[in-house]
Amino acid sequence: MQELPHFELRPACPQDVPALLDLIRGLAEYEKLTDLLENTPERLHEALFGERPVAEALLAWAKVDESSVAAGFALYFHNYSTFLGRKGLYLEDLFVRPEYRGQGCGKALMIELAQIALNRGCGRFEWTVLDWNTSAQRFYADLGAAVLPDWRIVRTTGDSLSALASLPRNSSS
Amino acid sequence: MQELPHFELRPACPQDVPALLDLIRGLAEYEKLTDLLENTPERLHEALFGERPVAEALLAWAKVDESSVAAGFALYFHNYSTFLGRKGLYLEDLFVRPEYRGQGCGKALMIELAQIALNRGCGRFEWTVLDWNTSAQRFYADLGAAVLPDWRIVRTTGDSLSALASLPRNSSS
Repeated sequence: MQELPHFELRPACPQDVPALLDLIRGLAEYEKLTDLLENTPERLHEALFGERPVAEALLAWAKVDESSVAAGFALYFHNYSTFLGRKGLYLEDLFVRPEYRGQGCGKALMIELAQIALNRGCGRFEWTVLDWNTSAQRFYADLGAAVLPDWRIVRTTGDSLSALASLPRNSSS
Repeated sequence: MQELPHFELRPACPQDVPALLDLIRGLAEYEKLTDLLENTPERLHEALFGERPVAEALLAWAKVDESSVAAGFALYFHNYSTFLGRKGLYLEDLFVRPEYRGQGCGKALMIELAQIALNRGCGRFEWTVLDWNTSAQRFYADLGAAVLPDWRIVRTTGDSLSALASLPRNSSS
């Protein structure tokens, strides 16, 4: 019986930015969204370790022979529930390289995030999933999470965002 | 022709906590979710003005005779897009008291938020809407925003969150 690889989870530190960006590139390739990938080492460093960090990341390292390989990551930040009056933990990205899947790496990251959420007094741990991604939905259901069926995300970006910011304020709507 | 009331928008300050909580209560009543409302003046103050604020709020004041009435609010915080490598502005709650609707208050709040997003270099301005709330969806479409049809929110909270945090990490999944 083959032993499952051991994954060591560590909060990302500044030296991990290249490895983390490489994983983000892996995620973009997997989702066929590399044309949307505009992040850079400088931007990622600023977001995670700048004067006002806006996100945090966990890296999962797999022991391979004598060295460690970055096998997956989770990037997260805090949101806030007005009703609960408590912050929550929001998972922006979860990714495990295809060759390390089915070995407990994603699950270990999710368990660690749930522990961080509880330790910080968060009322909720939330993320999003594509409605056609049934394998991800099964994975999340196995972890006890529920898909909220009736909420939709609304977004404005680029030219639409600029146009909204330029609208006159004094008309009724 | 009756003149539309003028709404003055101001970032919430510590003295506004009672007025803001009153509006939050109004929102909970409107959504018939008062049983979920656990926020308190102390929690709200801590979230907005504590040592590590997790959210910000805008209040819309209507001039009524000689005094000002808190007619609506927006509560927001920053999220982060890994692909863009930029933070975004996330609108958690938008509410206008029923008696002040149709007078441009919500629109003024949305325009102000779009301006804040652009001024802070945000790549996106996002929020959520219930799939059956067609009047809200029309309002957002008129502002140029798009509903993302294929994303769903996943959540774990309460006992499910505690159970996830307690799972053993060494099993495959």
